Amino acid sequence: TLQHIFKEIFKAGLELQENDHRKALLVSRRKKAEDTIVQVNQDSIGDGIQRLVAGPCSVESYEQTARVAESLKKHGLALLRGGAFKPRTSPYDFQGLGLEGLKILKRVADEYNLSVISEIVSPKDIETAEEYIDVIQIGARNMQNFELLKEAGKSNKPVLLKRGLAATIEEFMNAAEYIISSGNENIILCERGIRTYERATRNTLDISAVPILKQETHLPVLVDVTHSTGRRDLLLPTAKAALAIGADGIMAEVHPDPAVALSDAAQQMDLEQFDQFVEQLKKYGLHTNEK
Amino acid sequence: TLQHIFKEIFKAGLELQENDHRKALLVSRRKKAEDTIVQVNQDSIGDGIQRLVAGPCSVESYEQTARVAESLKKHGLALLRGGAFKPRTSPYDFQGLGLEGLKILKRVADEYNLSVISEIVSPKDIETAEEYIDVIQIGARNMQNFELLKEAGKSNKPVLLKRGLAATIEEFMNAAEYIISSGNENIILCERGIRTYERATRNTLDISAVPILKQETHLPVLVDVTHSTGRRDLLLPTAKAALAIGADGIMAEVHPDPAVALSDAAQQMDLEQFDQFVEQLKKYGLHTNEK
Amino acid sequence: TLQHIFKEIFKAGLELQENDHRKALLVSRRKKAEDTIVQVNQDSIGDGIQRLVAGPCSVESYEQTARVAESLKKHGLALLRGGAFKPRTSPYDFQGLGLEGLKILKRVADEYNLSVISEIVSPKDIETAEEYIDVIQIGARNMQNFELLKEAGKSNKPVLLKRGLAATIEEFMNAAEYIISSGNENIILCERGIRTYERATRNTLDISAVPILKQETHLPVLVDVTHSTGRRDLLLPTAKAALAIGADGIMAEVHPDPAVALSDAAQQMDLEQFDQFVEQLKKYGLHTNEK
Amino acid sequence: TLQHIFKEIFKAGLELQENDHRKALLVSRRKKAEDTIVQVNQDSIGDGIQRLVAGPCSVESYEQTARVAESLKKHGLALLRGGAFKPRTSPYDFQGLGLEGLKILKRVADEYNLSVISEIVSPKDIETAEEYIDVIQIGARNMQNFELLKEAGKSNKPVLLKRGLAATIEEFMNAAEYIISSGNENIILCERGIRTYERATRNTLDISAVPILKQETHLPVLVDVTHSTGRRDLLLPTAKAALAIGADGIMAEVHPDPAVALSDAAQQMDLEQFDQFVEQLKKYGLHTNEK
Repeated sequence: TLQHIFKEIFKAGLELQENDHRKALLVSRRKKAEDTIVQVNQDSIGDGIQRLVAGPCSVESYEQTARVAESLKKHGLALLRGGAFKPRTSPYDFQGLGLEGLKILKRVADEYNLSVISEIVSPKDIETAEEYIDVIQIGARNMQNFELLKEAGKSNKPVLLKRGLAATIEEFMNAAEYIISSGNENIILCERGIRTYERATRNTLDISAVPILKQETHLPVLVDVTHSTGRRDLLLPTAKAALAIGADGIMAEVHPDPAVALSDAAQQMDLEQFDQFVEQLKKYGLHTNEK
Repeated sequence: TLQHIFKEIFKAGLELQENDHRKALLVSRRKKAEDTIVQVNQDSIGDGIQRLVAGPCSVESYEQTARVAESLKKHGLALLRGGAFKPRTSPYDFQGLGLEGLKILKRVADEYNLSVISEIVSPKDIETAEEYIDVIQIGARNMQNFELLKEAGKSNKPVLLKRGLAATIEEFMNAAEYIISSGNENIILCERGIRTYERATRNTLDISAVPILKQETHLPVLVDVTHSTGRRDLLLPTAKAALAIGADGIMAEVHPDPAVALSDAAQQMDLEQFDQFVEQLKKYGLHTNEK
Repeated sequence: TLQHIFKEIFKAGLELQENDHRKALLVSRRKKAEDTIVQVNQDSIGDGIQRLVAGPCSVESYEQTARVAESLKKHGLALLRGGAFKPRTSPYDFQGLGLEGLKILKRVADEYNLSVISEIVSPKDIETAEEYIDVIQIGARNMQNFELLKEAGKSNKPVLLKRGLAATIEEFMNAAEYIISSGNENIILCERGIRTYERATRNTLDISAVPILKQETHLPVLVDVTHSTGRRDLLLPTAKAALAIGADGIMAEVHPDPAVALSDAAQQMDLEQFDQFVEQLKKYGLHTNEK
Repeated sequence: TLQHIFKEIFKAGLELQENDHRKALLVSRRKKAEDTIVQVNQDSIGDGIQRLVAGPCSVESYEQTARVAESLKKHGLALLRGGAFKPRTSPYDFQGLGLEGLKILKRVADEYNLSVISEIVSPKDIETAEEYIDVIQIGARNMQNFELLKEAGKSNKPVLLKRGLAATIEEFMNAAEYIISSGNENIILCERGIRTYERATRNTLDISAVPILKQETHLPVLVDVTHSTGRRDLLLPTAKAALAIGADGIMAEVHPDPAVALSDAAQQMDLEQFDQFVEQLKKYGLHTNEK
């Protein structure tokens, strides 16, 4: 039993070390007490004002994207999301318009004075992306694509990092650490649901991850209500919950005609539903620039 | 495209089938469109007013229980929870005071004019329980203890049914169906977190289960913030989220001295924390009978 | 940091205690080094000989059961399983023949000189069951129905305890501890798959649970290949794996006409498939009493 | 009953649809009935002979790697694994020797006449890797790094693709489809455990994935017993199970001095344990070139 006690002291020592280790993370609030505010053109993410990021799952055409942009503008929203490079389970599914998509996003952003968030999937595309978009998104499937994280860490653009499909919160923070330790501290975390046994929703929204991430890190935290639920009818209630629990913003997908969308048809709102979505959320604290 | 149309017809057929099956459930909203309101003495659960059910994990003594009751009373809360029969992973852990615990609950409830919710674990105890408590709780581990469900279905007391540790929403509704089809339609559902790979919380609160259950069934839905998170620091934020998403109430554990609690020491609030918890939640819509 | 070190020592102390606690479990190999051999009439489970337990999911009639018994007999197998009390997700699904089913099992067992294993779901039925069956099965949904475990612990019949749908190995061992600490050490553990996100199989067979349980406890361990996979085409390969990894036996479902079975139609073998199953497994170490 | 017949037709239609979809995959056995045999220098993977791939988690030095190579040679084993680019959860953990590691592997492989398998994590490194290694490994975290998959699909080297941490079998097959549809059909699949709630093992070995993948695809399937269990004491029993269920080979980690290993210290075998491991597995069907 003496041996046992020694073992336990060693173990305790090890845990102490781990503690220290965690303390050492640059994304940790122990390292930096005050909130990081990520500036995206005229908007600040993480400044206590709760914002909405919205747009189509995939950029399909200038017209489609412009119609969504118009709707955002109408509501006083300034953050447009849209996929140009689409990581898809099957190689035979629509893979996005690629560079063409980024160009459409840029044109629309300029015309409507919006900021653009779009996913980049390859380290070599980071540099190009910087010309066209305002925030580089790293998607759930690439959360532990460390080469991509390091490359994004060298960018001068903010990075929106999505939690991996089955990533623990600790792994998620470490993924962000890859970015910050490469030099980029403008990181926005995004909870987007985790994979569980439950089949009523596409993923299970881990709502308690929001206050945990807010406590443990100094980074802003968004909630993607579209991918976490995969159900149009759950977008509004989960968005309310996300605002109430203290998320810095919501992400949601909207498409002028979801039925013909080239991806995620079942879960995008149409423009009318989006109007109601925004109107409702304003009562729950959502900020818009509307007068 | 002809092939495509056929495919769509097939798909629609399948959905129809599923629809039919689900429609048949007595707990389903398709069977009964209006909300079921469960009357618990002077309080109504499910009437659109959001309530708080609180109390110690285990009833340990008259004094401990009375102190909590006093705190509830002070805040205008009328629903006291407390465990007398405790289902514990290990046979060597404290198993609750049993009948003695029910008697303490009854005495305290009478003195403070509260209603009492307590877990029953054995079909043979249902009858006895009716003399002492107002709502029979069926715990997560017994969600598919069908003999217990059927017996509770024959009771004239309301039943609070907790979701199983790894139960799907469909299984949860079917468990409630065992109760309702045995004759008791006074059922309150309770989301209490599901088992996932994530270790930052004791369970993962499946917040989107609340709107799904509200849509699919006509039964009131509570959220147990204590067991879903297992962390005192997450009780308040998750309770806010639960209120925002439309839960009919919150369940939480409070103990006069959590450090010496015989179960769940790490996650119960003390009385001071509870005061703050209630005050905060009132701003988010929590109803109390306080003047 | 001194404070920290103290904390860690306390924590270490706590862990030590837990260690001791685990050591204290009566099912633990630290408590009893040699294997427990469970005698079921003429057969010994856990004696190093790998056996097969087979039979229909539900007992439906004398004829159906007798035809399976005949097949077992032909192969020199002595352990018949069959469900009389069926815990079903929906109250509207076939719930088993109940006592009538136990009587059929008894009659068939006597005529064919077999031992019978059947699930009991209610504490009050344990005593009755003892008249009709040789091994009391406690099913996955009831693994933490502690009242049932304690009652089974008072029985003089062996208990086959199935792992819960999402039970950890530690919870599984503690469930067995409820039985052994109530006085019954004739316990057979049964791995039957756990609930995961994967949908290709009904559950995910946790094959490594077998060597872990064999190391940690002194109890025999079976593998239920039917419920873990839910697919007829996987019964043979998973049974081979189970034998190779050192399981004390295999459980599998066989029905004279699976297509019309009242439960689990998709996963039961017919008699011909069962013949091939047994013949194949003999080459992989399965024991039969055939000459 | 008419309604019932319609329902069955709908169901059949749906299954047909699914069938069609799956049939289209190039990795599917419906597309190519006979087994794909992947030639790795003098060895064939998938030819019905069960092989062992072994080596250190990380290449740390020439001496360390050479000592393992010597051990492989002694046992008549020809397939050496070793990590040069290490994807690690934390950016502060040892990230591997990189190109230096590949050079060590090449030197050792030449000296001992072995084939080398090593993980590549960046599309840009695929070309370089071809000079040094024989099989390109794509790790679990990169299973849906589609850019990497496509690049590997253009390589003339075989690809060993590991299943993602929480990937479904269907997603796993689709990831392989990215490689094959880019032109490379020399793909070896590797089951390495999936993420579940169970904490007794690092991951849960999904043993039934092996027969499913063998049925659904024409590709060889290995089982990585080290990463699936994360426990040295489970390597041998799970390897036996993998051989019994029909895996085309086993992957395991061995290190001359695991206690000082720069990664995965707790789960690698030392050389003596490895000797026993190989000797035992030979009795269970493992092939070696030993005379």
